[in-house]
Amino acid sequence: MEDNKIKIGITQGDINGVGYEVILKAFSDPTMLELCTPIIYGSPKVAAYHRKSLDIPTNFSIINSASEASYNRLSVVNCTDDEVKVEFSKPDPEAGKAALGALERAIEEYREGLIDVIVTAPINKHTIQSEEFSFPGHTEYIEERLGEGNKSLMILMKGDFRMALVTTHIPVREIATTITKELIQEKLMIFHRCLKQDFGIGAPRIAVLALNPHAGDGGLLGMEEQEVIIPALKEMEEKGILCYGPYAADGFMGSGNYTHFDGILAMYHDQGLAPFKALAMDDGVNYTAGLPVVRTSPAHGTAYDIAGKGLASEDSFRQAIYVAIDVFRNRQREKAARVNPLRKQYYEKRDDSDKLKLDTVDED
Amino acid sequence: MEDNKIKIGITQGDINGVGYEVILKAFSDPTMLELCTPIIYGSPKVAAYHRKSLDIPTNFSIINSASEASYNRLSVVNCTDDEVKVEFSKPDPEAGKAALGALERAIEEYREGLIDVIVTAPINKHTIQSEEFSFPGHTEYIEERLGEGNKSLMILMKGDFRMALVTTHIPVREIATTITKELIQEKLMIFHRCLKQDFGIGAPRIAVLALNPHAGDGGLLGMEEQEVIIPALKEMEEKGILCYGPYAADGFMGSGNYTHFDGILAMYHDQGLAPFKALAMDDGVNYTAGLPVVRTSPAHGTAYDIAGKGLASEDSFRQAIYVAIDVFRNRQREKAARVNPLRKQYYEKRDDSDKLKLDTVDED
Repeated sequence: MEDNKIKIGITQGDINGVGYEVILKAFSDPTMLELCTPIIYGSPKVAAYHRKSLDIPTNFSIINSASEASYNRLSVVNCTDDEVKVEFSKPDPEAGKAALGALERAIEEYREGLIDVIVTAPINKHTIQSEEFSFPGHTEYIEERLGEGNKSLMILMKGDFRMALVTTHIPVREIATTITKELIQEKLMIFHRCLKQDFGIGAPRIAVLALNPHAGDGGLLGMEEQEVIIPALKEMEEKGILCYGPYAADGFMGSGNYTHFDGILAMYHDQGLAPFKALAMDDGVNYTAGLPVVRTSPAHGTAYDIAGKGLASEDSFRQAIYVAIDVFRNRQREKAARVNPLRKQYYEKRDDSDKLKLDTVDED
Repeated sequence: MEDNKIKIGITQGDINGVGYEVILKAFSDPTMLELCTPIIYGSPKVAAYHRKSLDIPTNFSIINSASEASYNRLSVVNCTDDEVKVEFSKPDPEAGKAALGALERAIEEYREGLIDVIVTAPINKHTIQSEEFSFPGHTEYIEERLGEGNKSLMILMKGDFRMALVTTHIPVREIATTITKELIQEKLMIFHRCLKQDFGIGAPRIAVLALNPHAGDGGLLGMEEQEVIIPALKEMEEKGILCYGPYAADGFMGSGNYTHFDGILAMYHDQGLAPFKALAMDDGVNYTAGLPVVRTSPAHGTAYDIAGKGLASEDSFRQAIYVAIDVFRNRQREKAARVNPLRKQYYEKRDDSDKLKLDTVDED
């Protein structure tokens, strides 16, 4: 049994936010340990502080590396200076350093094959900035460090409701100029592959939102739909990717239309995430698609407004664990299914004299 | 009784959409006629066609002007060429002409004092365009025709959830350059006055959304928050307008934070309307605040995808009627309360020798 369990590397995130609270709450239920072997990259002292001040009865072992993680236990790898202090809700560069240290260590051990997937607790995007970390967020950092040259795609999801973004952390001022046919197609291809490979959907249907209000209203409210988005979709359709739209964003979720699709591609951050969170805030999961590594995180942030109060819900974090496990297994299944493929046995008409040649070897 | 009823002018909107369907369905319930005297500006023939093809048992009288409208009846003023044909879901310039004709007539009779409020059924914004009508939509047109120089503010609302927009029907490309301190303040002042006068809220609290993702993340994702929005809010606060923010738009609705405010001011169309409709699509109401005329409409559009199928819900239209009535009454009440104001009787300290002067006449 033990060997089959997925090893989940969990980074502590910002120690002054709700990260430890949701981690400890999620693993207060022992059945979680039947699903996976969780390893927190962080600080046993900080974990103990949160455990005590929030009165969460979750036990953990202290280890030096994920290689020592034992079955049926929550483990903590110490990656943090012992002197770091928790001050709930305080943006603190020391906490930022601690968050980065944990993340670095998780990436290192992932590279060594000691963990299978990474689940990140929320960071404070300001205090973590440093010479080593100058990225808008986790997604971009992990793409850089573990992407192996692949581009990532940020997906917010809850069950079958999956929202991906063409542009993410950029000012509104730059949205229209950033969106190009190539960028949309790149994101569509990652999304398509992800829905097939990571979520096991044979022929995924993707809805694409328009950039402008009312989908540009035929040009009255902007030309990007006609000049950029529609041509991009047409070319993708010709390549066999089932993409539809562009749909006016304002009514798309409200009308329930989104339920007819396996994925929705929004043009920018708030366009996708404001309605997504309105419908699925509490147990949304942020999944970084397109990379060799499987990385998820809860959809919420550090939540300084409720940090240290015991009010944070662990639902989103728990879902992040579930999604990481599901995606990892789906990928393994897909890989296993491709190890010894059956030879193709269909009739391929090469010329008029061709007959059914069961012995033809096809190149793939 | 009769004289007390509010006369509601209803414009037919696009005759190939769901407009007549929702109107006739709303008035199929006779109790609606106890609340108001409804006058449709449109075409008896077209109304009869919809009535028959959708099998809605709503009766109406044909009149020449709202002055003939009788108590406890739904009336139709004929403003449309008799030859106009209904073709469900078809964008048709003839239908656009009919929509504009009805709107013009309603405005005319409003000016003559024959109706009290205007409720508009959805138009097709393309087919209505003409020499007389070159506006992005109803809101802008009514501001121009009945605004008496006042600026309007588009509010989408459901109960106490009221979402107003700083910018409306403009391309995303133009949002950041359109938003200025003055524009935000103008909208805030209209919103504030509207919440007091039209909805009877003594000291309304308004939440303002940020322009950029994560409220600009302290400048990492755009400077408009720091350079434009925050200074605008500060000045407004000093003038006694209770405004808060700017809040990151993506989590604001999902977290339920919006329920703590009487109104929310979004920076642009999809930012406000995508989450609004996700939460309140079915019975949202579009209210045009800031103008002397009270005008509402359902939050949905022509809904060509379900036109003529009998599937449209009249909830939103019915709510539009209710809101128009409420706002009209609130304004009357406010007016009545101000006719004979009590003289101020507080002690105003003008200099150290001042005593309580009950006979002081204050200028207002």
